[in-house]
Amino acid sequence: MPRVTIHRKAHFNAAHRLYKKEWSDEKNLEIFGKCSNPNYHGHNYELVVSVTGEVDKETGFVMDLAILRKLIRSEIEDAFDHKNLNLEVDEFKDTNPTAENISIVIYNKLRKKIIENLDLSIKLYETPRNFVTYSGE
Amino acid sequence: MPRVTIHRKAHFNAAHRLYKKEWSDEKNLEIFGKCSNPNYHGHNYELVVSVTGEVDKETGFVMDLAILRKLIRSEIEDAFDHKNLNLEVDEFKDTNPTAENISIVIYNKLRKKIIENLDLSIKLYETPRNFVTYSGE
Amino acid sequence: MPRVTIHRKAHFNAAHRLYKKEWSDEKNLEIFGKCSNPNYHGHNYELVVSVTGEVDKETGFVMDLAILRKLIRSEIEDAFDHKNLNLEVDEFKDTNPTAENISIVIYNKLRKKIIENLDLSIKLYETPRNFVTYSGE
Amino acid sequence: MPRVTIHRKAHFNAAHRLYKKEWSDEKNLEIFGKCSNPNYHGHNYELVVSVTGEVDKETGFVMDLAILRKLIRSEIEDAFDHKNLNLEVDEFKDTNPTAENISIVIYNKLRKKIIENLDLSIKLYETPRNFVTYSGE
Amino acid sequence: MPRVTIHRKAHFNAAHRLYKKEWSDEKNLEIFGKCSNPNYHGHNYELVVSVTGEVDKETGFVMDLAILRKLIRSEIEDAFDHKNLNLEVDEFKDTNPTAENISIVIYNKLRKKIIENLDLSIKLYETPRNFVTYSGE
Amino acid sequence: MPRVTIHRKAHFNAAHRLYKKEWSDEKNLEIFGKCSNPNYHGHNYELVVSVTGEVDKETGFVMDLAILRKLIRSEIEDAFDHKNLNLEVDEFKDTNPTAENISIVIYNKLRKKIIENLDLSIKLYETPRNFVTYSGE
Repeated sequence: MPRVTIHRKAHFNAAHRLYKKEWSDEKNLEIFGKCSNPNYHGHNYELVVSVTGEVDKETGFVMDLAILRKLIRSEIEDAFDHKNLNLEVDEFKDTNPTAENISIVIYNKLRKKIIENLDLSIKLYETPRNFVTYSGE
Repeated sequence: MPRVTIHRKAHFNAAHRLYKKEWSDEKNLEIFGKCSNPNYHGHNYELVVSVTGEVDKETGFVMDLAILRKLIRSEIEDAFDHKNLNLEVDEFKDTNPTAENISIVIYNKLRKKIIENLDLSIKLYETPRNFVTYSGE
Repeated sequence: MPRVTIHRKAHFNAAHRLYKKEWSDEKNLEIFGKCSNPNYHGHNYELVVSVTGEVDKETGFVMDLAILRKLIRSEIEDAFDHKNLNLEVDEFKDTNPTAENISIVIYNKLRKKIIENLDLSIKLYETPRNFVTYSGE
Repeated sequence: MPRVTIHRKAHFNAAHRLYKKEWSDEKNLEIFGKCSNPNYHGHNYELVVSVTGEVDKETGFVMDLAILRKLIRSEIEDAFDHKNLNLEVDEFKDTNPTAENISIVIYNKLRKKIIENLDLSIKLYETPRNFVTYSGE
Repeated sequence: MPRVTIHRKAHFNAAHRLYKKEWSDEKNLEIFGKCSNPNYHGHNYELVVSVTGEVDKETGFVMDLAILRKLIRSEIEDAFDHKNLNLEVDEFKDTNPTAENISIVIYNKLRKKIIENLDLSIKLYETPRNFVTYSGE
Repeated sequence: MPRVTIHRKAHFNAAHRLYKKEWSDEKNLEIFGKCSNPNYHGHNYELVVSVTGEVDKETGFVMDLAILRKLIRSEIEDAFDHKNLNLEVDEFKDTNPTAENISIVIYNKLRKKIIENLDLSIKLYETPRNFVTYSGE
């Protein structure tokens, strides 16, 4: 059977700051620039979740998009939307919420919920000009 | 010679419904939701055709984009644009026109017309939030 | 108080055809071209609803966007999404579902639900290249 | 001389929360929903500044875009980008940073810097689906 | 009858430079910056043509979009696309091809071809961040 | 450590023409069509630079985006923006500035400046409908 990738776009808004607890304010400012602002700043994160697998002969689907959409809502949007990532999302208590690390967290959360024979990939836009991709490698 | 991928974006509008003839209306509704509406619904399909190969030393082209553009027009746009995919496109007489299956049909139609040493890949947006990719694997 | 316009983007997919019952198939084809295909075609309609009024001193809102979003969902998206506009939407039983007429129908439906001291305007994209605006004039 | 409008797009990221100091947390939650999160959330604000006036016969310009670009940078981007609007921007110390109020603040800041015979208008995207316009009326 | 605006998006690529013949190279550089490069630079111009009028009761159209599309092609795209505006387009022989002036030229060319009871407006993107609008005022 | 790709979008405007010095004007016109116009035409080139590598445990970065942004500015934007690629950019003195060849030149210029254990990939939009990708293969 042919292998196709389906992509679903989603969205969440959140506040964050980039910093490392162990470092002084000066060092954080030096490394992370204005992204280390202790009062936080924020983004409209645009998320694309991609799932690759064989097309089911009966349905013509790789995976039911309605199920994928609900999964993204419950696992990611409900957990991250209108939140302060540093203060309110457990995964970033000790992890710097860079776009790289957010994409890894999203991958790991969804990976547990999608059956193993389907491949998973994450694209995350922090701004329209800055974005990351992660495929679990 | 370096290998580059060229991408060309195209567009067609069409009506379709998702359903399986052998199933009852109830089962089709259960599996395909409102996409199984017997009166059809429709989309602005955005298509990206990607062709990979060595850059020709004379022209600096992988493939003449004017030729690719005409090929997409004659093979895909003329065949699908302003059509009812279920009723008027032969390839979907017995195949459910999911985005997955439409991308496979487009790939197969173009694959025959593009010389073998060039790789081909299809990206098809059913909506700005739902899209698929297929590379013949 | 300053007058500001708030805009909310929404989305629905639908099938339609352009034709006039009183005309022959030949005349419909002549006037409406491939848009008159009796088997229908379809679009991803992108809708922008704009509401203008004074900014409320207490809330800083012209109108609660959550209310506007729900209004668009119940009045427009639920009524039009995944529908055949000609066959399943009463307002187009005797009205040709051109983008112009769809925007007038949307305006009239929402106008009844939004208080009179707020101005209303509709922008409707039939495709990314073809769109209309209507403000009740 | 013909009157033309020139538009310049800009961008800033910021954190904010919607709330009214005089109200209880319960009332703020009721009115502003998850936007009232005391830990803040954030957005990529996209800004379009529009200036209308007669085209200068010598230059063919309404206004030198390089000057407008620098004005937006110094007055708006430098003041708002990577900031917490509630805590770090004076204009929102006692004003709820709704999109409506942010657009009014931006208008008022730029209005002082652009000569009077040029009209000014502000469009501000809080998200790709929610945006506002303000023209000083 | 309700008055609706229809919008049609079009596209052309062209080279240009901004300069005034009567000025020295130094003065041109001072006023127009790198846009005055004597070797030219270029843009993908995105054009939106808007036509406002009463909706025809028979067709549901303000104006047949197929006619508008052909008019834009013959009057604008064929005349400007893949051209050097300064050297090859008569209207810019003595007029600086700023976005402002290009929008006025487009307006004037189309105004002659569209019947008087329809209003006309032009939006022209020189880049995704710089654009102009002109309505004949 | 997980491997993530970071992407940074940039922009430059330039004039160019496609032609081969050794060919007659007739042959150039035959092969390159209106792109061979001796007076040049131009584009808004949109560039996406992608860098893949392990996420640094300290910073959560694959590479500091501020450094990548400056590198793109100094190596690509300063060299290409508002230039005539054929006349003013050394790399195209003897190389036809097709999108394919521009992407190879960009790749080669950046490859020298980015440490070897990071992979590099280039996406270049010549127009919104025509674009290329190159990864050094």
